[in-house]
Amino acid sequence: MARKIRMGMIGGSLDAFIGAVHRRGAALDGEVELVCGAFSSNPEKSKATGEALYLPANRVYGSFEEMILKEKELPEGERMDFVTIVTPNHVHFAAAKMALENGFHVVSDKPATLNTEEVYLLRDIIEKSGLIYCLTHNYCAYPMVKEAKQMIKNGVIGKVRKVIVEYPQGWLSQLLEATGQKQAGWRTDPARCGAAGGVGDIGTHAENLAEYITGLKITEICADLTIFVEGRQLDDDANMLLRFDNGAKGILHNSQICNGEENDLNIRIYGEFGGLKWKQMDPNTLILTNQEKGSRIIRTGVGDLSPQAQAHTRQPAGHPEGYIETFASIYRNFSYALRARWGEVAKENAAGGLAGESEILTGGYNPEIHDFPGIEEGIRGMVFIDTVVKSNEAGAVWTKVEEH
Amino acid sequence: MARKIRMGMIGGSLDAFIGAVHRRGAALDGEVELVCGAFSSNPEKSKATGEALYLPANRVYGSFEEMILKEKELPEGERMDFVTIVTPNHVHFAAAKMALENGFHVVSDKPATLNTEEVYLLRDIIEKSGLIYCLTHNYCAYPMVKEAKQMIKNGVIGKVRKVIVEYPQGWLSQLLEATGQKQAGWRTDPARCGAAGGVGDIGTHAENLAEYITGLKITEICADLTIFVEGRQLDDDANMLLRFDNGAKGILHNSQICNGEENDLNIRIYGEFGGLKWKQMDPNTLILTNQEKGSRIIRTGVGDLSPQAQAHTRQPAGHPEGYIETFASIYRNFSYALRARWGEVAKENAAGGLAGESEILTGGYNPEIHDFPGIEEGIRGMVFIDTVVKSNEAGAVWTKVEEH
Amino acid sequence: MARKIRMGMIGGSLDAFIGAVHRRGAALDGEVELVCGAFSSNPEKSKATGEALYLPANRVYGSFEEMILKEKELPEGERMDFVTIVTPNHVHFAAAKMALENGFHVVSDKPATLNTEEVYLLRDIIEKSGLIYCLTHNYCAYPMVKEAKQMIKNGVIGKVRKVIVEYPQGWLSQLLEATGQKQAGWRTDPARCGAAGGVGDIGTHAENLAEYITGLKITEICADLTIFVEGRQLDDDANMLLRFDNGAKGILHNSQICNGEENDLNIRIYGEFGGLKWKQMDPNTLILTNQEKGSRIIRTGVGDLSPQAQAHTRQPAGHPEGYIETFASIYRNFSYALRARWGEVAKENAAGGLAGESEILTGGYNPEIHDFPGIEEGIRGMVFIDTVVKSNEAGAVWTKVEEH
Amino acid sequence: MARKIRMGMIGGSLDAFIGAVHRRGAALDGEVELVCGAFSSNPEKSKATGEALYLPANRVYGSFEEMILKEKELPEGERMDFVTIVTPNHVHFAAAKMALENGFHVVSDKPATLNTEEVYLLRDIIEKSGLIYCLTHNYCAYPMVKEAKQMIKNGVIGKVRKVIVEYPQGWLSQLLEATGQKQAGWRTDPARCGAAGGVGDIGTHAENLAEYITGLKITEICADLTIFVEGRQLDDDANMLLRFDNGAKGILHNSQICNGEENDLNIRIYGEFGGLKWKQMDPNTLILTNQEKGSRIIRTGVGDLSPQAQAHTRQPAGHPEGYIETFASIYRNFSYALRARWGEVAKENAAGGLAGESEILTGGYNPEIHDFPGIEEGIRGMVFIDTVVKSNEAGAVWTKVEEH
Repeated sequence: MARKIRMGMIGGSLDAFIGAVHRRGAALDGEVELVCGAFSSNPEKSKATGEALYLPANRVYGSFEEMILKEKELPEGERMDFVTIVTPNHVHFAAAKMALENGFHVVSDKPATLNTEEVYLLRDIIEKSGLIYCLTHNYCAYPMVKEAKQMIKNGVIGKVRKVIVEYPQGWLSQLLEATGQKQAGWRTDPARCGAAGGVGDIGTHAENLAEYITGLKITEICADLTIFVEGRQLDDDANMLLRFDNGAKGILHNSQICNGEENDLNIRIYGEFGGLKWKQMDPNTLILTNQEKGSRIIRTGVGDLSPQAQAHTRQPAGHPEGYIETFASIYRNFSYALRARWGEVAKENAAGGLAGESEILTGGYNPEIHDFPGIEEGIRGMVFIDTVVKSNEAGAVWTKVEEH
Repeated sequence: MARKIRMGMIGGSLDAFIGAVHRRGAALDGEVELVCGAFSSNPEKSKATGEALYLPANRVYGSFEEMILKEKELPEGERMDFVTIVTPNHVHFAAAKMALENGFHVVSDKPATLNTEEVYLLRDIIEKSGLIYCLTHNYCAYPMVKEAKQMIKNGVIGKVRKVIVEYPQGWLSQLLEATGQKQAGWRTDPARCGAAGGVGDIGTHAENLAEYITGLKITEICADLTIFVEGRQLDDDANMLLRFDNGAKGILHNSQICNGEENDLNIRIYGEFGGLKWKQMDPNTLILTNQEKGSRIIRTGVGDLSPQAQAHTRQPAGHPEGYIETFASIYRNFSYALRARWGEVAKENAAGGLAGESEILTGGYNPEIHDFPGIEEGIRGMVFIDTVVKSNEAGAVWTKVEEH
Repeated sequence: MARKIRMGMIGGSLDAFIGAVHRRGAALDGEVELVCGAFSSNPEKSKATGEALYLPANRVYGSFEEMILKEKELPEGERMDFVTIVTPNHVHFAAAKMALENGFHVVSDKPATLNTEEVYLLRDIIEKSGLIYCLTHNYCAYPMVKEAKQMIKNGVIGKVRKVIVEYPQGWLSQLLEATGQKQAGWRTDPARCGAAGGVGDIGTHAENLAEYITGLKITEICADLTIFVEGRQLDDDANMLLRFDNGAKGILHNSQICNGEENDLNIRIYGEFGGLKWKQMDPNTLILTNQEKGSRIIRTGVGDLSPQAQAHTRQPAGHPEGYIETFASIYRNFSYALRARWGEVAKENAAGGLAGESEILTGGYNPEIHDFPGIEEGIRGMVFIDTVVKSNEAGAVWTKVEEH
Repeated sequence: MARKIRMGMIGGSLDAFIGAVHRRGAALDGEVELVCGAFSSNPEKSKATGEALYLPANRVYGSFEEMILKEKELPEGERMDFVTIVTPNHVHFAAAKMALENGFHVVSDKPATLNTEEVYLLRDIIEKSGLIYCLTHNYCAYPMVKEAKQMIKNGVIGKVRKVIVEYPQGWLSQLLEATGQKQAGWRTDPARCGAAGGVGDIGTHAENLAEYITGLKITEICADLTIFVEGRQLDDDANMLLRFDNGAKGILHNSQICNGEENDLNIRIYGEFGGLKWKQMDPNTLILTNQEKGSRIIRTGVGDLSPQAQAHTRQPAGHPEGYIETFASIYRNFSYALRARWGEVAKENAAGGLAGESEILTGGYNPEIHDFPGIEEGIRGMVFIDTVVKSNEAGAVWTKVEEH
């Protein structure tokens, strides 16, 4: 009989931010259950977290190495099926590598690794393992992002000419890392975060969103990075000009010093015959602009939407769906892919609801619909970071985006 | 050792809407696990739903009566702790009654019962049982609704003068119930829905929201109900004038024929010194108006908010929180209340996250913060429906809201 | 040779509000020039105003009676063509009467008169005079209001079912009239304002807007008026239920104590097949809702709009047009009607611009396009006030709207 | 006795766009009257325009040269006081030069001249003439732009760190100039428009707005220009990175191919302690962001605003003021400056209204309040265009903004 898929978590102790996001996302659709965890490199914290999560003490580990080895020894009917990695960036590679080499599928928070060297190594390891690797670039899982991608694919706005993608935040307007705040601490520390600060943390989300929706690749970047807050070690503001592989031009800026901005990831894309506008903070609305016909408001759950948008919608129109659902959708899609490997036909969305009603699942897992980011998106992100840093160091000059 | 709280579900088969909402809400914070269900009065549908939810076959029942009796016989370490009732309205009372009389706590979708007779009987049964009864008037669990309530309590806008509360939808603009659509079917059928249509389904949410935020009681109503769609049996549009117990005046309208409206519950409250505006479809924003100082935008997660708002927030500012979180908060608060009965100190929010960081839980369950609606709100709702129907039948005249 | 049309102003001294609005509106399109005025019953104030307006001293009068008599004696090539009445309400009738009886056309601010007795008398006087009477219910001159009216006329949303029209302001949240503020003074004084306060001042705008756009008549009203600010003599808040002559239902509320609201006149109209939403404070946007197709954003100057909307648009899309343009359009339309009487073909909009480009004027003045409110709208307004006051005095009961 | 100031117009025939804007703006406040014009280089068109404007035939001229010479010969009590130049760019310099050299003050549409050579010559001519030169960079005359400038001056957001200014339009998404459309024709023709297309037409507005509000100077630009529409001769899209003289960084983009965008000039400015956001299409709203306190909505006419904002406001809050008012304010301020030269104390705003009420004019013309752009802003604009073109031609490299 079918059973829930078993997850082991690496990182995500009680005082972390993204660990709880992943736990809630994984739980939402009822496909996945948390069975074990190495929540912290501090064994006491790991234990306390396990207790708060009502896990049995023997499934809470002091390190990811211990978890992987011990779980591997458990009988198949009991041991975890995959690990989810929610640590700071510098642990991503080692944890993913060990999990894959021991036969566990991997879900990982982004960026995939600390640097490009690691990301290419990881690609090879994944390939060799034959296992599933899923990277939680979650913003692409919003229904209206799915819809935007399909509209562009279907030529609704014609050839793309201009892309403006922004990710302003304001939370690092002062030297927060000097106060001991945990989130600020590792995100501004090159050893744990990598060669870039805001560019790695949120700029990569902007890059991923732009390439995902348009289906285009950024080919050249001119990037002007700044550290505005004295005493900070990594960039807290980035302004970039972009060029795309179809001749489109663009702007990307991300910032952590836009005082008063919350998490305002947004994108505007203009083509020959229209434009598309989307804002993460109002995620269930997509605007289609048109010079002759005026604008249309496209909304989650309203009217004839693509199967892709429908499959990522859980409520009737007007019942706001948000951030947590994006993680849920990635875990759900990952689960469907895994069940397909197991020879199971993905059935009704286990938690029920709209996906079931619209019978999108007839015929089971469909990678055209239940897509999720993987190592290719991870490589794009790491190469993006590298290119930006290189451009900036050379004096904010045009620099080619080159993958090996 | 602490464990998750065990839920048995009544109603909520795969083709239902609200069952999945409850399952997701209950799962989100990791406090509750679904252990059994009587998902449909059709045993085949109940079984199929149980399978899709990965429940063991022996915990999936053909009727709620069977479930309650069989679960009662299971050992304490295994049997469910409470039932959640997510059926159409006409089943609410019988299911709640039997659960309570057999020692199970109850969570119930609204309205509490089919009519006022039942609701007063239910009050007595709850009282006699000494068990917890929780009614999922979910919209009051949004962080910005919590904040609005505290602001009014703290006198920020002075004495309330005017309340405008609206709940327009458009989905019944045509005779959808004639097409066999399940949601439309029972909601327009007096036998399953009660004496009122839209007034019971969504008008009660508007009434509850207005009374919850303002802390006032509606004392008189003048209601003009209409059935706009030919062939429909129950009201699909309602316009009401309101009077409140402090002398405030108000307007309430709910509709299912506002063609093109999604689920636009919203409220505006004006007092001597300012006003508050909130829209369910943009739930993380609260506007405080003021004649002399202009308006302030109050946002989930931004600045100094009340402990009540903070305790119902899961993400940093700008990461949209939505509808599913309101159910999660009610289940979480119910869980904390239940643990307090068990002598457990509610710990960190089991799924981790912000509530933990802000240490709101220090000292454990706090009914001033972790409140949830119960039978009193259920009675208000049923009396509201009665008063509205009576006013309308008498020719849309002023009618007193009278509780027994 | 054609010349500008000559206006004499009654009321509108420098410390008034609406006088300057009329002067600017009349000046905007270059069709009208101010040639004389009786700006105040205080001759000193009248004189000072005339000077500030660069009028010759001999054309500034101490009373409207003086102005009408003296101007009448001037040669035709010099004397004013019409008067514009911008005084408090209690002067409207006497000034209009005397002007008409002495051969001058009239433009008047609303409401037409102080009470219904006067308005019926005025209708007879106008009829007898054969002159043009124009009432500046300006909000109906916004391009998107014109568009909404045409859309309903053309059946875009089908039969109208529900109308919600609101006019909340907050400026009288305290007893402003006690401070000597001039605008508050006369508007809260029954002798100068009439039997109703806010209902006459702004409720009539809401009534006019609803009837203008829908083409329907309000047939019954249930009105609950309140004086919230102690010491005030007239209503500062009104909540009403409406019934229309086609079976539609509605809500109208106007208020001057919605603390923090500016001038938020807005309307929502729902029909069988869609809805229309418009807000005066964002006047160049009209939303067309539709249950199946989602919403469209209709914008001043964008796409294929009705000749009516185009003829009331002066700038290319995106150049905000506002309040002053609505007065300008009424003066412009009045001017065209007057020129048509004179046998002149209204040419290009004298100030040039869009109307010219779109060649709407080919063929000259078109009353289907260049409409403006007159005495019929004035009567509707006065009867509305009467009905509301009567309903409220009888205890907020349903009362028929009856014209003689 | 005081009289209206007399304006002669150069350009602005009936089929032009900006001429009517200037006429309406000049007329709005009653300070200025149009007395003559050379509306077109085509005498027939000039004559027809003069007739439509009700000008006497002898004051309508066939060329600006004729107008300047003939008006000069008229007696002082009759002849024009200043010219306003509303032609395509290539005429600006010659017309301004001749007017100034013949003793007439000048108001000119922007950009000041066709190229930088001319602009420096013009500066010298103005200086030598001792006359007033006013450049209608109108967007800086919006009340909320005035307020933003004062807030930054007063340190409300601290030192400016980041500026994002955008001016997207969509009207040139296709090769409109090939259809004979007049506005598109000259704006895409280097001979009449200058070295840049969109950059000169709208990019300069963005540059002016950013420098005006912040009080900073742009020192370096990296500009990537594109011609997206085949067959076009000048840039229709521009993406730029900016550096400012205080170390701030920025982004400017302007475009005429953002399909479906109307006229969406907007700016965001972030400082150490907060941010300011303003959009031209919603001009009466200014948002002040703050990381700790949340956002405030600052509105035209609401609360304690700067004298600068108040002096540019004509209506009570909530009565939308728009584009035409910005031109009116520039003409009004120019008039006040001119009256001050004449030894007149600027009195009440001649058209009456709010400025009068708030007694801002006590003491007469105040250049700190009644400011308007002049030749310095003209030079900045021309140098900006030059720098952008140079940067782009060198391959989109960083280029210093250098004034002579």
